[in-house]
Amino acid sequence: MNREQALALVKEQITEHRYVHTLGVVESAITLAERYGADVEKAEMAAIFHDYAKFRPKAEMAAIIEQQQMDPQLLSFHSELWHAPVGAFLVQKEAGIADEAILNAIKYHTSGRAGMTLLEKVIYAADYIEPGRHFPGVEEVRELAKNDLDAALIQALKNTIQFLMKRNEPVYPDTFHTYNDLTKKKEDSN
Amino acid sequence: MNREQALALVKEQITEHRYVHTLGVVESAITLAERYGADVEKAEMAAIFHDYAKFRPKAEMAAIIEQQQMDPQLLSFHSELWHAPVGAFLVQKEAGIADEAILNAIKYHTSGRAGMTLLEKVIYAADYIEPGRHFPGVEEVRELAKNDLDAALIQALKNTIQFLMKRNEPVYPDTFHTYNDLTKKKEDSN
Repeated sequence: MNREQALALVKEQITEHRYVHTLGVVESAITLAERYGADVEKAEMAAIFHDYAKFRPKAEMAAIIEQQQMDPQLLSFHSELWHAPVGAFLVQKEAGIADEAILNAIKYHTSGRAGMTLLEKVIYAADYIEPGRHFPGVEEVRELAKNDLDAALIQALKNTIQFLMKRNEPVYPDTFHTYNDLTKKKEDSN
Repeated sequence: MNREQALALVKEQITEHRYVHTLGVVESAITLAERYGADVEKAEMAAIFHDYAKFRPKAEMAAIIEQQQMDPQLLSFHSELWHAPVGAFLVQKEAGIADEAILNAIKYHTSGRAGMTLLEKVIYAADYIEPGRHFPGVEEVRELAKNDLDAALIQALKNTIQFLMKRNEPVYPDTFHTYNDLTKKKEDSN
């Protein structure tokens, strides 16, 4: 599947606003992949499809999480998390994407996970810093991403955890595990 | 064992400064136990012994964690966490405290855990708010503890997680499991 075919499939699934965001993520993902030596074509494809399931009804997403035996904890955390693993499943099923690395980059683009691959980090960071993003803290992550991808992820994770804690909302365990994993590796490398 | 015997045992183990802190925790633990209906005698005993292992050599604590097959993850997190589970073990072994509820209140007084008992919450909060504590955020937790023990714990946990994140330090999983557990229960009860 080429870029145009992929974009056409995605455009049918999401709002115009979200499509513009997706184009921003594609741009940032390509930049980051080139900068850090990830597979640029896979980064582009993962970026195009990362929000494929964003506007699926919650009931459909919940049913897929159950049927596909994804982490049952997902259902007791914010539904905002669901479109990532559900998206990876639907992109495989409906768009025929079979590449595990691309599917995992989609699957973990919201929560992260301990032991993220370079491609997964590129998509996670690109989704956070794409040019259309404007929120407190994004500029700091954008700057960090120019020279230290892990530092950018740590800062993005800290922002996310703080945002949730300010609202007294629970934090999905994979998000904490990603923060711990990356900070521990930084400690070990210093 | 009565209060005086327990205090005498603890006094041999810790510095004068830490002993004064312990007396503060005893005072706060009794107040909280009375306020929330926990067992006051157990709260007093757990408070007296909560920092029993605080000044054991790190190597001794690490050896006990390994020999007693405690969570091996502890060793890759800050050693500040070790004295709590090691203390529960030593208080049983050396001071003859056999009461599981007291031992668990000692064991989880630094990290917390999902599903904390009332007594565990009392000791966790008392350790945080005792009158000798002076650090940013403590007064807010002190106020919350007067009327809502869970809200006090959530705030204390948020402060701890934020403190660690500011230093880019990893957060021991039980700490965020406790935060998630308590915030989820608050959501469910609202």
